Amino acid sequence: MGKVDYNEAALRMHREHRGKIEIRGKVGVRTRDDLSTAYTPGVAEPCRRIAADPAAAWEYTCKANTVAVVTDGSAVLGLGDIGPLAALPVMEGKALLFKEFAGVDAVPLCLDAHGPEEIISAVRALAPAYGGINLEDIAAPKCFEIESALERELDIPVFHDDQHGTAIVVSAALKNALRVAGKRLEEARIVLNGPGAAGTAITRMLLTLGARDVVVCDRRGAIYAGREALTAHKAALAESTNPRRVTGPLADALRGADVFIGVSSGNLVTQEMVRSMRERAVVFAMANPTPEIGYETAREAGACVVGTGRSDYPNQINNVLAFPGVFRGALSVRARDINDEMKSAAVDALSSLVGEGELSPEHIIPDAFDARVAEAVSRAVADAAVRSGVARL
Amino acid sequence: MGKVDYNEAALRMHREHRGKIEIRGKVGVRTRDDLSTAYTPGVAEPCRRIAADPAAAWEYTCKANTVAVVTDGSAVLGLGDIGPLAALPVMEGKALLFKEFAGVDAVPLCLDAHGPEEIISAVRALAPAYGGINLEDIAAPKCFEIESALERELDIPVFHDDQHGTAIVVSAALKNALRVAGKRLEEARIVLNGPGAAGTAITRMLLTLGARDVVVCDRRGAIYAGREALTAHKAALAESTNPRRVTGPLADALRGADVFIGVSSGNLVTQEMVRSMRERAVVFAMANPTPEIGYETAREAGACVVGTGRSDYPNQINNVLAFPGVFRGALSVRARDINDEMKSAAVDALSSLVGEGELSPEHIIPDAFDARVAEAVSRAVADAAVRSGVARL
Repeated sequence: MGKVDYNEAALRMHREHRGKIEIRGKVGVRTRDDLSTAYTPGVAEPCRRIAADPAAAWEYTCKANTVAVVTDGSAVLGLGDIGPLAALPVMEGKALLFKEFAGVDAVPLCLDAHGPEEIISAVRALAPAYGGINLEDIAAPKCFEIESALERELDIPVFHDDQHGTAIVVSAALKNALRVAGKRLEEARIVLNGPGAAGTAITRMLLTLGARDVVVCDRRGAIYAGREALTAHKAALAESTNPRRVTGPLADALRGADVFIGVSSGNLVTQEMVRSMRERAVVFAMANPTPEIGYETAREAGACVVGTGRSDYPNQINNVLAFPGVFRGALSVRARDINDEMKSAAVDALSSLVGEGELSPEHIIPDAFDARVAEAVSRAVADAAVRSGVARL
Repeated sequence: MGKVDYNEAALRMHREHRGKIEIRGKVGVRTRDDLSTAYTPGVAEPCRRIAADPAAAWEYTCKANTVAVVTDGSAVLGLGDIGPLAALPVMEGKALLFKEFAGVDAVPLCLDAHGPEEIISAVRALAPAYGGINLEDIAAPKCFEIESALERELDIPVFHDDQHGTAIVVSAALKNALRVAGKRLEEARIVLNGPGAAGTAITRMLLTLGARDVVVCDRRGAIYAGREALTAHKAALAESTNPRRVTGPLADALRGADVFIGVSSGNLVTQEMVRSMRERAVVFAMANPTPEIGYETAREAGACVVGTGRSDYPNQINNVLAFPGVFRGALSVRARDINDEMKSAAVDALSSLVGEGELSPEHIIPDAFDARVAEAVSRAVADAAVRSGVARL
């Protein structure tokens, strides 16, 4: 199934429909009474209620079901820094998936803003009308500063999907992959390649879930405390990872490893490298569209479980399994935040959807179109929000 | 038909539906192929096309049919400065009317931004994804500075509906009212009360259309060049109006006037004041919800034609007659601007929809639900855009 087919089909579809989303009325306007109820003079009354009590906006407006999908277009798919306008097709696609998979109204906001401060103030200005903020395709490391500043300042959830959506799905897939391989997260030697937004969030989440031996690699190889010229963000990663002080290139780090997680770029991992890993190795090669090593190539080299981002092989590790249900759940209880408890609950909900009976090297994670997914994730996230005290309902 | 009924009906309707608008997909996502075409990997190709040529966004995204409805909530209806969140029901209503009356997708953007500069930079940052900007319920005089700065900086139309939408509908209504009264705009003595956003734009448009004798009044009475302590914006108005240097309160200005236009507040005009006007007077009392003088009261006092903003009396002067068609027309030719030629074309299109046969003191302007309106305004605006050289198509 060639890339070109999808490119042509995508161009045709986007041109034919002029994009993928539209704004629709939930009520009709056919009579003077409709006009007087939906608009003036009637609309003044909900306005007065909200002016008197801002919380009333959750009752009388679309805030309760609406999320902003915010990008500056600085790290779009595999395309890089293509800017806010060229990122719009991706943001429209995201909004489409929010609605189709979880009934969430999502508004693409493509910001021509430069530097964290401009993005932070634009989102701060826009936030009042939304029940949550989904940050999307914003480059590391500025995405970390933007997310934490907005989390501090806003009373609605701020969730950078490239970080946390990916971390949730990878963690759920890894839990089940290790069950298949008969290994424990606490003992597994994990090597992650690509310390960007996704790689950093995956690392943090795996440590939260109990992993102890994670080695993060960048283009120069293993990251360890004291390695020369580390950026602040890599230095912080080094502090919490690589307890055995592994050094050298990715190939060295992979020798004897149980798990490889690639969120980097295509064709970086050879069959020799997979053969050098421990028995019953788990390989998640998630670079898009070309994985770090192909599904079949990795299986041939002896990998026990292989996952990729591709829909044309088993075990597709796809964010669409997480973000719709995560926001559905957060909105359903008017959560102030999407915290670690809620993210862990999403991981457990996702992994639990693959029963002992179905679990196999070719099936570690639910299908993107499994109708149970968004509902199960949403319920788990909502319950965790209530338990952890960030729910308003 | 009491206000209270509408208030109750509006609260019920807004609560029941959680607001009035939603985001909907224009395409379905039911198969892996759908996902690969609407999202990754296919979506990368439209992104690449737009990165290579920004104009391609008009072809491959919803930009071509989408307008931002931007407010800071500083001058909402008759409610004043209630802030961005409390303004959301009005902005949703506006978006609903854009879609229902002209098929335009409109996105409410409620900005928690203070001062012109913050609003200008937020809108500048947001603009790329939209085909036009509708500014809404932003207080005068900052609305003038914001609009002209954005018009200079952006390559899409920026239209402050409270100014220009109102000016278009009032001008069209006045043209026909003067036909009924047998008077000419060039000779009519026109008194306008309320030099805010609407009053200023109406004054400018009437002068553009040929009016020569316009007296603008504020709370202190007639505005004339050299009146003490005039704001910059009132001083500018004084320069272009009041050629007879009328002074004194509104009552004095109205003596011998042919036309009263009120965009101020309720119950400011008495029957005596109407009786003091010239024979066959035209009275537009548009304060909402309570007019400067009631429809029947003004007619009893001898006014020849009376218009108000109310739907429960004849001659409702309502912006919904203008903004949907104006933006539909501008978007249809990808206009860079909504200029005076386009606004005048909208005035002519609107007034022409009331044929000689139908024209009467009770019928000077089309009904809000007249299906011909948006189409006629749209076509006239699009043609004028092409003629005046601001169309991209």
